[in-house]
Amino acid sequence: MRYDIAIIGTGPGGVSAAITAKVRNKNIILFGNKGLSEKMSKAHKILNYPGLPDISGKELAERLSAHLDAMGIEVTQMQAGCVYAMGEYFGIQCGEGMTEASTVILASGVVTSQSINGEDEFTGRGVSYCATCDGQFYRGKHIILIGYNAEAVSDAVFLSELAESLIFIPQGELLNDKSGADIKAGFSEYGNISVRNENPKSIEGGLRADTLVTDSGRLKADGFFIIRDAVAPDKLVPGLKTENGHVPVNAAMETSIPGLFACGDVTGAPYQYIKAAGQGNVAALSAVSRLAKLSREGM
Amino acid sequence: MRYDIAIIGTGPGGVSAAITAKVRNKNIILFGNKGLSEKMSKAHKILNYPGLPDISGKELAERLSAHLDAMGIEVTQMQAGCVYAMGEYFGIQCGEGMTEASTVILASGVVTSQSINGEDEFTGRGVSYCATCDGQFYRGKHIILIGYNAEAVSDAVFLSELAESLIFIPQGELLNDKSGADIKAGFSEYGNISVRNENPKSIEGGLRADTLVTDSGRLKADGFFIIRDAVAPDKLVPGLKTENGHVPVNAAMETSIPGLFACGDVTGAPYQYIKAAGQGNVAALSAVSRLAKLSREGM
Repeated sequence: MRYDIAIIGTGPGGVSAAITAKVRNKNIILFGNKGLSEKMSKAHKILNYPGLPDISGKELAERLSAHLDAMGIEVTQMQAGCVYAMGEYFGIQCGEGMTEASTVILASGVVTSQSINGEDEFTGRGVSYCATCDGQFYRGKHIILIGYNAEAVSDAVFLSELAESLIFIPQGELLNDKSGADIKAGFSEYGNISVRNENPKSIEGGLRADTLVTDSGRLKADGFFIIRDAVAPDKLVPGLKTENGHVPVNAAMETSIPGLFACGDVTGAPYQYIKAAGQGNVAALSAVSRLAKLSREGM
Repeated sequence: MRYDIAIIGTGPGGVSAAITAKVRNKNIILFGNKGLSEKMSKAHKILNYPGLPDISGKELAERLSAHLDAMGIEVTQMQAGCVYAMGEYFGIQCGEGMTEASTVILASGVVTSQSINGEDEFTGRGVSYCATCDGQFYRGKHIILIGYNAEAVSDAVFLSELAESLIFIPQGELLNDKSGADIKAGFSEYGNISVRNENPKSIEGGLRADTLVTDSGRLKADGFFIIRDAVAPDKLVPGLKTENGHVPVNAAMETSIPGLFACGDVTGAPYQYIKAAGQGNVAALSAVSRLAKLSREGM
């Protein structure tokens, strides 16, 4: 089965795209989290989402969730590992499976942390961004997980159930004292997880990554998971044109790849909820136009 | 006094721009209607404004109004007659007065009816789009008002109080039977208004417009008011680049005139509430950047 539109990301851009696509009776798949967006949920106050004055990020996420529910749109809780442009359709690798869609809307957010040296080189060769997708490749093996958010903590627990051992290296927001204590407490019943407060410098290896170099030494492993809020768009979609880590779009939200549209923070600043929602709407309508064109051409 | 940002239009684009500009502590003036947008208010169901599932246009307008109220933003109920780019600021003609603003956001909507032959030629020379602005020039004179919406009906009542006589020519949505009866009933106590169901063909004259040619004959008057939901952007802003009646914008919502931004339906299809709201946000932030630049340059 081939979906009309695959939407990657459940921030306001992806949610808006899904809603408009559904209004237009398209057969869609929405990849993301049931909690929608951790970044949004943590926003203290949002003052400028017109129609919802003075709302918290958590409330906005709940309202967007309720909107999806009201329209019967489900969130597929998997991370799209890689999107391959096949010409008249796209293949979206997700775990061991491949999902097909005629068009794709990229709403994967902005990457706020810098890559680690060697990370790009070993992506797909020992470096992974998706525990759900790639966990099973590391059954009985040794994993290092570099985690930047709360999702990384639950990913570590999931991976530790498959792996022989897992080293968890907290980064970013997970470095504060409270998070540190929470992580230690959360992992206490998982004997094969060890937390190391080291600063990753580079990933090294031969054909595959096998070593993480930190400020304190060298750590060996079979697989390296890096869990951030967002994956760089050109890692997600090989061949996609980016500028300074963002995906340039025109007014119709078209990217450099025909049939692939983008919306929200992935398209660049300003990073604003209502802007993302507006762009998601346009991206969905552009995907609808593309589908009509493909249909006329008999594809 | 010079405003930081003048926003023209109170659809979702203008309202969103006003809200974000206010959040950024800018000194703004918002021209429009207290009812915000007649087009929006008449929308039966809006399914794809994320966060507000299955809302009527009237409810959305009420929610946007409440958001403006909550932020202490007032709507200036006047129609901006003309926007003049003066280099480092803009002059906005409104009635007999002139308002100054360092930047302008055009959110004036889309013009859905075609111009009448001769209309463009006589704009400002007997042809007006704003009863509030230009009514006083026709005290004791004869007016023809060609009206496309409910606002035209109240404008006719206002103008009839100044003018010697007024001929009201209903067009567009006002041509249906119910509107026809409502208009007749509404005007019954105004002895100097006559309603004529004729089809305007052209406006003619010498230095100033003096004749409306219809399918039934020729009607003389001193002034001709044409009241539609929106005024063509290049009539509102002389010198502004347009394409097929729309204002082309880049991703920052910049137009061909530095310091003038546009958002919403005036920028072209798709005509969508959430898209307009998103663009309004971007336009406001771009205006904020422009103000910072002007300030750095000491303007």
